[in-house]
Amino acid sequence: MSIRLLRSSSHHQCYRPRYQAFSTTTRWRWHTSELDGEKMKSLKVHRDRLMKDIHHTAQWGTGERWGKASAETGMSRLALSDADKSARDWFVKTTEELGCKTTVDAMGNIFAVRPGQKDGPPIYAGSHLDTQPTGGRYDGVLGVTAAIEMLRVLNDNWVETEYPVGVVNWTNEEGARFPISMVSSGVWSGSIPLDHAHNLKEVGSGTATMKSELERIGYLGSTPASHEAIPMAAHFELHIEQGPILESERHKIGIVQGVQAYRWFTIHVKGQDCHTGTTPFNVRSDALLTAAKMILQSHRAATKHGALASTGILTLKPGSTNTVPGDVKFSLDIRAAADKTLDALEQDLRDDFALIASASDVAGLNTHGTPGLPCTVSWSTDSISSATTFHSDCISCVEAAAKVIFGDETEKLTKTMTSGAGHDSVYTSKVCPTSMIFVPSKGGVSHNPREFTSEEDCTLGAQVLVGSVVECDRRRVRG
Amino acid sequence: MSIRLLRSSSHHQCYRPRYQAFSTTTRWRWHTSELDGEKMKSLKVHRDRLMKDIHHTAQWGTGERWGKASAETGMSRLALSDADKSARDWFVKTTEELGCKTTVDAMGNIFAVRPGQKDGPPIYAGSHLDTQPTGGRYDGVLGVTAAIEMLRVLNDNWVETEYPVGVVNWTNEEGARFPISMVSSGVWSGSIPLDHAHNLKEVGSGTATMKSELERIGYLGSTPASHEAIPMAAHFELHIEQGPILESERHKIGIVQGVQAYRWFTIHVKGQDCHTGTTPFNVRSDALLTAAKMILQSHRAATKHGALASTGILTLKPGSTNTVPGDVKFSLDIRAAADKTLDALEQDLRDDFALIASASDVAGLNTHGTPGLPCTVSWSTDSISSATTFHSDCISCVEAAAKVIFGDETEKLTKTMTSGAGHDSVYTSKVCPTSMIFVPSKGGVSHNPREFTSEEDCTLGAQVLVGSVVECDRRRVRG
Repeated sequence: MSIRLLRSSSHHQCYRPRYQAFSTTTRWRWHTSELDGEKMKSLKVHRDRLMKDIHHTAQWGTGERWGKASAETGMSRLALSDADKSARDWFVKTTEELGCKTTVDAMGNIFAVRPGQKDGPPIYAGSHLDTQPTGGRYDGVLGVTAAIEMLRVLNDNWVETEYPVGVVNWTNEEGARFPISMVSSGVWSGSIPLDHAHNLKEVGSGTATMKSELERIGYLGSTPASHEAIPMAAHFELHIEQGPILESERHKIGIVQGVQAYRWFTIHVKGQDCHTGTTPFNVRSDALLTAAKMILQSHRAATKHGALASTGILTLKPGSTNTVPGDVKFSLDIRAAADKTLDALEQDLRDDFALIASASDVAGLNTHGTPGLPCTVSWSTDSISSATTFHSDCISCVEAAAKVIFGDETEKLTKTMTSGAGHDSVYTSKVCPTSMIFVPSKGGVSHNPREFTSEEDCTLGAQVLVGSVVECDRRRVRG
Repeated sequence: MSIRLLRSSSHHQCYRPRYQAFSTTTRWRWHTSELDGEKMKSLKVHRDRLMKDIHHTAQWGTGERWGKASAETGMSRLALSDADKSARDWFVKTTEELGCKTTVDAMGNIFAVRPGQKDGPPIYAGSHLDTQPTGGRYDGVLGVTAAIEMLRVLNDNWVETEYPVGVVNWTNEEGARFPISMVSSGVWSGSIPLDHAHNLKEVGSGTATMKSELERIGYLGSTPASHEAIPMAAHFELHIEQGPILESERHKIGIVQGVQAYRWFTIHVKGQDCHTGTTPFNVRSDALLTAAKMILQSHRAATKHGALASTGILTLKPGSTNTVPGDVKFSLDIRAAADKTLDALEQDLRDDFALIASASDVAGLNTHGTPGLPCTVSWSTDSISSATTFHSDCISCVEAAAKVIFGDETEKLTKTMTSGAGHDSVYTSKVCPTSMIFVPSKGGVSHNPREFTSEEDCTLGAQVLVGSVVECDRRRVRG
C-alpha cells in the first residue's frame, strides 16, 4: 500500500482490537503478503453460495412478484423494519460464525471484523441491506453478501490478512423510510449530526423516529457512530450500476473513479395567461413554450459540457386547453463528474435561460417561430452535492484485482466510470480511502422489482471485491 | 339588400308578426330607405345611456372587486341563476317599454322585436347576458346593451325601419354553468337537440338541469327554440375582441369575417423512466424532452401556416426530480381561419411528431443535442370545430356603417379579422346571414374581472352596430 493510504489511516490511533482469539489459535496456510498472481487466482468466489445468500435474505421483506421463478420478486425491506431486523440478525449470526467480532454503533451500522496478523484499522467491504419500498434484490444486498462471501473465501483458503478485514452494513442508505439517503455513513463520517439523524421521522403518517426504531429492533448500539471510534483503513463497495452503460457497452466491471456532482434547481417561468384562440403569437408571454425551449437548451448545453441535465417535474397554471399557461415551474437536475464542469454548465444555463425568457434567440431555438413577449425566469436551489473523487490507491487495487481475473481482456471487459447515483462510499471517502466496483444492471433498471444482474456478473463483481481487499492488504505491508 | 340576403331568409314563410300596434299608431319622421349619409350620421348613440345600462345591470351578479371605482368589479352571473333572472326581467321590461314585443323560446332565448313598415323576419342585434364565474362587465353584456341602445336611437330619431328589427339575448353562451358553450343558439339553429340541452346538468355538485332551472326562474318559453319558429333575416353581434390585436395595432373596430376553426387533441408520449444520474443521454427515452421538442415544433409549424398552436395542459409520470419521465400527456389546440389550413397543419404535425418521437431530427431540433432512443406518440381527438365564414352582405353592412363614422380614416381605424373564440353568431350563421363587430379589449384580457373596454370604444362599437342594422334594412328594400 502506498504512503498515501497509510497516512490516511495513521491518525486512527484510538483503534484497539478487543479480540485476538481467532487469529492466535488458527494455523494459516497463507499470509496475503505471500499471494502472487497464481495464488490470487485460486481465491475463488463460489457463485452458488453467493446467490444463495442473495435469495435467502430476500425472504425478509419480499416484494412484488414480476415473474414465475422463485427469485422473480422484488424487495420491500425498509430500514429498521421487522424485515430489516431479521436481515441484520442473519448478518450478525453469519459473520460471527465466520469468525468475526461485530460492533453496532449508535446509528445501527454493523461492523463485522475478521482479525489479521497485526492490529490496525480494518479494510472494509460492504454496502446496505435496506431497500426501496418497491426495490429489487441487488441494490445494496449484493455489496453486503459479496463481502460475506469474501470472508468465506478467505477462510476456505486459510488466508490470514496482514491487518483485519471487515464487512459493514450501513443503516438506511436508501433514505426511503427516513428521508435522508446515506444518513448513517453520513453520521459516521462526521458529515451529519447524530441528533439530527436520530430525530428523523419516518415518511408517511407514522410517528417513529430513527432512534425509536433502532431501540425497538435492538440495534441502537453503544459505540459512537464515528469514524474515530470505528476507524477504517479503506472502504470498498461492490454495487450494481443502476444504469445501462456497462450492459450496452458489453463491459463486465465498472472501476468507479468517483461520484458525480449534482445540483437540483426549481426554475420558475412567469408569463401571462391568455386565450389560445384570440392571442397571436407575437403578443404572447407563453410560459410553457419558454420552458420547453429551456428544457431543450439544458439538454444541448449538458451535451456540450459532457454532463447531464434532466427535468423530472413540471407543473403549470392555470391548466386549461384553451388558455396559454402564464406560470410554469420545472425541476432541473444537472450532473457532472467534476464540480467545475457543473459550474460552467450552470453559468451557461443561467445565461441561456435569461436570453430565452427575454424572447431572444439561443442557438436557433427561435428559428421558424414567432418571437413573443418576454417572460421572467427565476432559479431556486434545492440541493447541491459536490463531486466525490475516490482514492487512487483503492482504484489501483480494483484495477489490479480485475487484471488477475481478465488478464489481456481487462481493457475490453472493464470500464473506468463515474457513479451517477450517491452511495455510502461518498461519505466514507471523506475520511478514508474508498472506491467502488460496479456490475451491469439489466436494461439499466433499478429501484424497481425487475432490477436484475446475472449470476455471472454478481460473481465476477464479488471476485473483484475479494481481490481488491486482498491487494489492498498486501500493499499495506509492502508500503 | 342583395339578392343573396333576401334569398337566405326567403324560406322563413311561417313568420307572421303577431303585433302591429306600435307601427300603425306612430307618425314616423324617417323610413330607413330615406336615410342618406348625413342623416345616418345623425343617428347618434348616447354614450352615457349605454354605459349606464352596462353598469346598472352589473348589480345582478356583481363579481370580484379589482379597483376602487364603483364600476371596477367583475361579474359572476351564471346562466339561469337568480342574478340572470333579474337581468332577464330588466331586458324584457326595458325592450317592451321601448316598443318591442318579446318572445321567450324553449331554451329561454329572449327575442324582442320592434315592428317595421312591412312584415318579415326581423334583423336582429344581440348577444348574451350570462357571464363566466369570474368574468368581466363587457363579454356578452356590451352586445345586448348596445342592441337596446339601438332601439333607443331609432325611437329618438323617429325612424321606422322597412322590416322589423330585434334584440336577442341568448341563454348560457358561456357554457360555464351548463357545460356546452353557445348551447341555446345551437338548439335554435338546429345544431343541438333540444332534449340534450334541456338535460344538461350544472357543473359541480348540484343536480339542476337547464330545463329545471328554466322552469324555476320562469323562462321556459312555449315557443319552439327553432329558427323556423323564430326566423331571423340577419344577425349582428357586437362583442369585445377578447384578444390584444385591435389595441396593439391601434384600430377601433374589428370587422369580423368569420370564426376560426379549431381542433383539440391530447398527445401521449411514452418513453421509459430512468435515473437522471445513471442514464446517459444516448440510452434515454425521455418523454418530456421529446414533448418539449413537439411543443416547440407545433409553434414553428403553426407560424409557417399562419395558424395558432398552443399547449395549455401538460402532465407527466412519475414526477420525481431524479427520474426522467417515461410518460407525458399534453393538450394541443390548433386554430386557423380556414379548415384546409388546419388540415395541412395537422398533417405536418402528425408527420413531425412521429419523426421527433423516433429520435430523428426535425428542423434542427436535435442540433447540439444527443440523440436518444425512440419514444412512441399517439393522438386522441378531443374536439373539432370547423371554420365559420360570415355573410359577405352582413360584412358589407358593417363596412358601410364604419365608413359613415370614420370617413377617410376607415382603413386606419378598422381591421378585417377572424374571431379566435366562438360566439352565438357561429350558430346563427348556419341559418341566416350573420356578422360580428369587435371592439378593443384592454391588454387582450377577458374572462377575468379586469376585462375592460373604454367608454369611447363601447360607444363606437354600438354606433357601428346601429349603422349596420339600419344599412341592412335599407338594402333589403333596395334589393
